[in-house]
Amino acid sequence: MKAFEDIAIGDRSELGSHRFSAEEIIRFAKAFDPQPFHTSEAGGSASPFGRMIASGWHTAAAFMKLYVAFDKEHQRLAEAEGGRADHAGPSPGFEDMRWRKPVHAGDTLTYVSEVREKRDLRSMPGWGLVILHNEAHNQDGELVYSFTGKVFVRRRAPEAG
Amino acid sequence: MKAFEDIAIGDRSELGSHRFSAEEIIRFAKAFDPQPFHTSEAGGSASPFGRMIASGWHTAAAFMKLYVAFDKEHQRLAEAEGGRADHAGPSPGFEDMRWRKPVHAGDTLTYVSEVREKRDLRSMPGWGLVILHNEAHNQDGELVYSFTGKVFVRRRAPEAG
Repeated sequence: MKAFEDIAIGDRSELGSHRFSAEEIIRFAKAFDPQPFHTSEAGGSASPFGRMIASGWHTAAAFMKLYVAFDKEHQRLAEAEGGRADHAGPSPGFEDMRWRKPVHAGDTLTYVSEVREKRDLRSMPGWGLVILHNEAHNQDGELVYSFTGKVFVRRRAPEAG
Repeated sequence: MKAFEDIAIGDRSELGSHRFSAEEIIRFAKAFDPQPFHTSEAGGSASPFGRMIASGWHTAAAFMKLYVAFDKEHQRLAEAEGGRADHAGPSPGFEDMRWRKPVHAGDTLTYVSEVREKRDLRSMPGWGLVILHNEAHNQDGELVYSFTGKVFVRRRAPEAG
């Protein structure tokens, strides 16, 4: 994540892809979301989906893993070039999370994040708020998941500006 | 989860409590959200929060675990009484997720879910959509987390009505 001043509305980041294996779908669901249509093919067959589907929290967790890895790699590259990049900061929440299509075993989702809005924060000097629209498409190009995230980002340190 | 027809706006369910140990906060963050202020006390001290805080996805996952356990127990009791209860169905998404206060090691959150709205679904005969407002308070009574969830719920089978 760049400093707040260096982020532009419209900036678009390809965060990477994640493949949802049957094993991982079941393991995640057993740990966090043990509903029958997430934990076995049989439970999926008996559900309105007709097949086992990944937990929506699994789709969200895969976003978060890719986002954090992307952020770390960006920081590593910036430092290698003698520059400076901040880690993304904490998030106050997000809006309008939509699981638009089921995610099945063997699907690969590709996640993209786009800057939609920047807000100054009187309550947090030294930080700004960035509004990001995040999407995941599957291997057939279908939009399967989206949400609008918010993240606090540090302003450039005075000595660097 | 009751059948759609048996759910009333205003129905309030105490889902239970979850204690966030330092070990669990770190283990969850390393797996899904490895940002420095989630994975060690030192990283937390260097953050604007001044202490390690739980990942927001961890707060959300604890909700999901309690919600699914509550639903299973409700079903077990209904069947023991000779009645019938359905599992909650899949969710199309949720809105306005807010991490309002930090969750620290040792905090215990108590989760409550309240029915806010019911919608008929022309597109899914046999199902309705229930809108739930979910909240978590900490041991000091502070509201730390809230979101508005949506869940598909089966209508009563014709033979039972």
